[in-house]
Amino acid sequence: MRTDINCDMGESFGSYRIGQDEKVMPFITSANVACGYHAGDPMIMARTVALAKKHGVGVGAHPGYPDLLGYGRRNLETFPGEIKNYILYQIGALAAFARSAGVQLQHVKPHGAMYNLAAKDERAAREVIEAVKIYDPELILVTLAGSLCAQMASDAGLQVAREVFPDRAYLNNGQLAPRSMAGAVIHDPEQVKERLLKLFKTGKLTSIDGYEIALEMDTLCVHGDNPGAWQLARTIRETLESSGIRVVPMGIK
Amino acid sequence: MRTDINCDMGESFGSYRIGQDEKVMPFITSANVACGYHAGDPMIMARTVALAKKHGVGVGAHPGYPDLLGYGRRNLETFPGEIKNYILYQIGALAAFARSAGVQLQHVKPHGAMYNLAAKDERAAREVIEAVKIYDPELILVTLAGSLCAQMASDAGLQVAREVFPDRAYLNNGQLAPRSMAGAVIHDPEQVKERLLKLFKTGKLTSIDGYEIALEMDTLCVHGDNPGAWQLARTIRETLESSGIRVVPMGIK
Amino acid sequence: MRTDINCDMGESFGSYRIGQDEKVMPFITSANVACGYHAGDPMIMARTVALAKKHGVGVGAHPGYPDLLGYGRRNLETFPGEIKNYILYQIGALAAFARSAGVQLQHVKPHGAMYNLAAKDERAAREVIEAVKIYDPELILVTLAGSLCAQMASDAGLQVAREVFPDRAYLNNGQLAPRSMAGAVIHDPEQVKERLLKLFKTGKLTSIDGYEIALEMDTLCVHGDNPGAWQLARTIRETLESSGIRVVPMGIK
Amino acid sequence: MRTDINCDMGESFGSYRIGQDEKVMPFITSANVACGYHAGDPMIMARTVALAKKHGVGVGAHPGYPDLLGYGRRNLETFPGEIKNYILYQIGALAAFARSAGVQLQHVKPHGAMYNLAAKDERAAREVIEAVKIYDPELILVTLAGSLCAQMASDAGLQVAREVFPDRAYLNNGQLAPRSMAGAVIHDPEQVKERLLKLFKTGKLTSIDGYEIALEMDTLCVHGDNPGAWQLARTIRETLESSGIRVVPMGIK
Repeated sequence: MRTDINCDMGESFGSYRIGQDEKVMPFITSANVACGYHAGDPMIMARTVALAKKHGVGVGAHPGYPDLLGYGRRNLETFPGEIKNYILYQIGALAAFARSAGVQLQHVKPHGAMYNLAAKDERAAREVIEAVKIYDPELILVTLAGSLCAQMASDAGLQVAREVFPDRAYLNNGQLAPRSMAGAVIHDPEQVKERLLKLFKTGKLTSIDGYEIALEMDTLCVHGDNPGAWQLARTIRETLESSGIRVVPMGIK
Repeated sequence: MRTDINCDMGESFGSYRIGQDEKVMPFITSANVACGYHAGDPMIMARTVALAKKHGVGVGAHPGYPDLLGYGRRNLETFPGEIKNYILYQIGALAAFARSAGVQLQHVKPHGAMYNLAAKDERAAREVIEAVKIYDPELILVTLAGSLCAQMASDAGLQVAREVFPDRAYLNNGQLAPRSMAGAVIHDPEQVKERLLKLFKTGKLTSIDGYEIALEMDTLCVHGDNPGAWQLARTIRETLESSGIRVVPMGIK
Repeated sequence: MRTDINCDMGESFGSYRIGQDEKVMPFITSANVACGYHAGDPMIMARTVALAKKHGVGVGAHPGYPDLLGYGRRNLETFPGEIKNYILYQIGALAAFARSAGVQLQHVKPHGAMYNLAAKDERAAREVIEAVKIYDPELILVTLAGSLCAQMASDAGLQVAREVFPDRAYLNNGQLAPRSMAGAVIHDPEQVKERLLKLFKTGKLTSIDGYEIALEMDTLCVHGDNPGAWQLARTIRETLESSGIRVVPMGIK
Repeated sequence: MRTDINCDMGESFGSYRIGQDEKVMPFITSANVACGYHAGDPMIMARTVALAKKHGVGVGAHPGYPDLLGYGRRNLETFPGEIKNYILYQIGALAAFARSAGVQLQHVKPHGAMYNLAAKDERAAREVIEAVKIYDPELILVTLAGSLCAQMASDAGLQVAREVFPDRAYLNNGQLAPRSMAGAVIHDPEQVKERLLKLFKTGKLTSIDGYEIALEMDTLCVHGDNPGAWQLARTIRETLESSGIRVVPMGIK
């Protein structure tokens, strides 16, 4: 049994700091590195890739919409080809820092509103998949477990890492419970632990309505932009490892 | 005898158009493609690389300062490492489109104020050279003939394409005559032709003061952002070819 | 009988040029000046206000989404208060140049996707109206004739200039025929003239389906970003004036 | 005896936070509010003006270079008129929020590299002064005590607030000791207190070389972007008030 812990990294910009990358990096295995559109800049990217390398963490591109003001979290209308080309641009930019650091690019995970759109919109999913495939068909695409994008990417022959959020509740249909629902975010670390262990033992989670739902997954996402992120990352990692589950970068065979 | 004609391409942005890339591309052999910092965007980059490929034109990155408002033409103070990382970012971004189009990246030519600074400033030149070398030591660096950067890049083992401007006058020391000097820009196509032929026959140009100066060079630069650019490009190409000089992309051995 | 001709102006940016402001300005009476978000920059704004002043043209703010890449033409999700504050910011910025030129700000016309959204979306319309009203309740709001925004602004006590597009076809319900419909854009100047004269004589237009529809309006919009814009503006102005209709800035009582 | 305490405020951007405005605002009397170029955005500006109003703090514009990535701290080449128009744009934008909140704009203080340049460069100082004067000759210009800009602004008939940094050492000529000098920044609050009291009693400070230098000043600047800023602001305010010095917004007669 094995899994991967991924986290958004390198989301600072110029003099602005977001996240505690130095504290979180030791506990994760895959870093989704912002590429300068929704967050990140060339200096930050260079530093983030170096930090990931130091900790043996897999490096992935985390492309978003060109909307620093909205942090890539709000919907932006795009015309055909724009999502694909936005992603190509950002993968390439990050790849230059990986190359410069002697690190192989491992994965791509779209950010924020682009991630959410691709999870359910056919055109967006297709453009995400095309961008990854044409850049390098060996790259792993990280996407929401059970989503349209996960299905389409598999069908297209891409390696897919299906993602689960250990501190989030799920609906009966396997989709994330929206943050607006009571109980959507699980704040108690003990409860997070229990759910994780159950998921690994049984392949199932209890939905927000109390049903048992099956969830196939390849990577766990920890959010890096709240102060306690590194502690949650550590808790998750220790819980998994003390239960005999190997936590390794998704790209390691 | 052979040479190369390079031109800045892909400098439009969103709804804004600069240059007449479709008209100029048939007459040049190397395209310096803007990478989204001083000009260009992902859609434009994809189209420009496709256009270059169609015409068998070598594709190069044309990185600049992150200053769309100033079009990369004004000095911007940078801290150590910023020029290097700005260039890495932009080479990588363009390389993604080259890769996606099945084209090999041929060269790098810094833009505007960054180009001018690197020509004479040791720290800037070193960062430009480091960026190119660490990204891909096979890339050709296009830089001003006779400049500090040309010398340092050769010393560092990079392939250098020394650039000459056929419609510009030169000082006795081999440097470009500043645009503010009378006669700095040569508008008469006949005069441009004569100078070119003389340069290829004798390796010399007449300086703005009337002296004969030697100039070693590998590529001729045509500016793409004035309406008559494609005509100048055609004149230069025809003049050279009818004199038996091969005009081929700098990267073709 | 009187009317006003408005046109988007000052939509260049840095080295990028859009429109032929010098040619169009003599024929219009109100200029919608871009404010640096979807287009325009401080140097362009200063020049555009000076040009409008020279021709006795009323100066208005033309605020848009902060999306230069998309030229303010694509939808951007906003959170409550953002449209209002985006507009306040841009009105204020333009007002500084009006003030500096000794010109009174006359009107506000939202741009592109923001204009279209406000025409039909209640929250957007309310924020547009609030911004204008709190900045200066004497400002005229230019909005689509027959739209929700026109109605809400009148109800809120704002002066409204209802806008009609002389080179566009209309649906039976008085809404613009979408550009995707055949015949949506009227290219023949003679036809534009005829429609205009009929509109002023009868208050009616023939819809795209052949029905007679009534249209109340205060200003005619001419698009400035195609090469023939100034000719259309001249045709419209001459047609109106030779029919005894005064063409004056909307703010002149 | 009276003085003013000013602090840069509203320098967050989108999801990025800088400074602790809520903690600092109660102890200052004038807020320099970022205007969206080097920092700040419309939502932040609205909130910052409201916060200042709540605490009876004078509101000023804090314009900078259009360089969010560099936080306005690095030199950017400008062409004639650009500094003036950049400042006009930003004053106007902030004024819209002041107006919307029913607050009178009190002052203008250029930011970072623009402030430093204007302190010593004649063209920059002239453009700063022209922008302020043409926008509203009643606005106070905050500038470095003893600088060229302070002198030129006085000569031009502007109200000037000469600024002193209580936690910075000074050279014998009355200029700030560069941060690179040992002892340039005074970290000990007790020492800051002593220097302040001496300055108010005698009009003099001990220079970094041990000489007594006279310093005329109207406002004290506290930096807001380090965690202890609010404590330093409180210390300074309490020290002054307990010594019978009134601390009031610079614009209050």
